[in-house]
Amino acid sequence: MKMIMAVIRPEKFDAVKQALADKGYFGMTVTEVSGRGEQRGVCLQYRGKPIHVDVIQKTEIQLTTCDEKADEVIDIIRTTACSGRIGDGRIFVVPVEKAITIRTGEVFY
Amino acid sequence: MKMIMAVIRPEKFDAVKQALADKGYFGMTVTEVSGRGEQRGVCLQYRGKPIHVDVIQKTEIQLTTCDEKADEVIDIIRTTACSGRIGDGRIFVVPVEKAITIRTGEVFY
Amino acid sequence: MKMIMAVIRPEKFDAVKQALADKGYFGMTVTEVSGRGEQRGVCLQYRGKPIHVDVIQKTEIQLTTCDEKADEVIDIIRTTACSGRIGDGRIFVVPVEKAITIRTGEVFY
Ligand SMILES: Nc1ncnc2c1ncn2[C@@H]1O[C@H](COP(=O)(O)OP(=O)(O)OP(=O)(O)O)[C@@H](O)[C@H]1O
Ligand SMILES: Nc1ncnc2c1ncn2[C@@H]1O[C@H](COP(=O)(O)OP(=O)(O)OP(=O)(O)O)[C@@H](O)[C@H]1O
Ligand SMILES: Nc1ncnc2c1ncn2[C@@H]1O[C@H](COP(=O)(O)OP(=O)(O)OP(=O)(O)O)[C@@H](O)[C@H]1O
Ligand SMILES: [Mg+2]
Ligand SMILES: [Mg+2]
Ligand SMILES: [Mg+2]
Repeated sequence: MKMIMAVIRPEKFDAVKQALADKGYFGMTVTEVSGRGEQRGVCLQYRGKPIHVDVIQKTEIQLTTCDEKADEVIDIIRTTACSGRIGDGRIFVVPVEKAITIRTGEVFY
Repeated sequence: MKMIMAVIRPEKFDAVKQALADKGYFGMTVTEVSGRGEQRGVCLQYRGKPIHVDVIQKTEIQLTTCDEKADEVIDIIRTTACSGRIGDGRIFVVPVEKAITIRTGEVFY
Repeated sequence: MKMIMAVIRPEKFDAVKQALADKGYFGMTVTEVSGRGEQRGVCLQYRGKPIHVDVIQKTEIQLTTCDEKADEVIDIIRTTACSGRIGDGRIFVVPVEKAITIRTGEVFY
């Protein structure tokens, strides 16, 4: 299995969740995080003065799925979370040895 | 080593922490997350009307341990976090290449 | 690639971020977490009475980088986050199969 960890813009979360559901992906774990990328944050105007915000709020989606479906999930997230502007986020793919459903004890590899 | 990431009901956290401590597992990292599983959330009654809550608060425990102890940890979490009702959570097992204790510099593989 | 997950003291976060930036590492994802290590928390004095706090607030830095740079990143975090007192934190290293930049679609292995 693969753990897909996507750090996206919070305002894109609803669209990504919907796009995943449209293709049958419902399970996910969501964490409020903050972060920065290669541009080291953003420069905003506040009352006419520039202020530098270096760690920006983001939403992290963690979705674990079988190997065959990983690329479809990545593709749905990538195309839906993309605005074309810097700061759209990153997706990390981590190997998962197994996943267990607590209620049933079922194990997936 | 293995990183055991368990998403459980918040109300089960104290019992899981105690059950792990009883077997000698003290170290853990805890994150407040939200999520949904295959049932796409829950349907609640609010003032006689159904409302659909699709992303529910959960607690994520991250516990990294050596390969030999991973199955015992998974078992403790699974049996303690289980209520038998849908939404009890999932456990993911991820390989860890090494773990370093910052104070001592000690490295575990 | 490697995902470096470091759980550190919140008061060390600014110094670690600066030390990483000084060496050219800007990208990171930050989560407010809580946790405990082998000492099972700390014992504090409150109005002359001991109180036991078993899960303490920590900051988790997640920084994904190429294999060649992983040890440098670990070293920067370890030396900057270290105070020498118990509770300085731990660093976990997890393999990453690929990382995708959402805006450009660029994939890193
Ligand atoms: N090397 C990294 N390790 C961990 N998280 C990262 C890394 N780089 C970026 N992130 C996370 O991704 C979020 C979005 O990053 P961002 O989209 O700015 O990446 P980028 O590579 O700078 O791409 P762009 O050029 O489109 O801005 C950051 O806020 C951070 O949470
Ligand atoms: N595929 C998944 N990827 C990541 N996290 C998941 C996934 N499925 C479930 N989760 C996490 O586990 C939590 C609990 O899920 P849940 O117990 O409802 O799983 P389930 O498979 O639907 O099992 P059940 O049939 O017992 O409800 C979710 O809130 C979410 O945080
Ligand atoms: N086995 C573990 N699994 C996951 N997280 C852990 C583990 N052990 C420690 N942590 C995380 O690291 C944080 C700091 O731990 P701590 O520095 O006390 O580790 P330690 O091994 O007890 O080292 P020290 O002896 O220096 O206190 C904890 O609050 C927790 O978030
Ligand atoms: Mg950027
Ligand atoms: Mg469910
Ligand atoms: Mg300790």
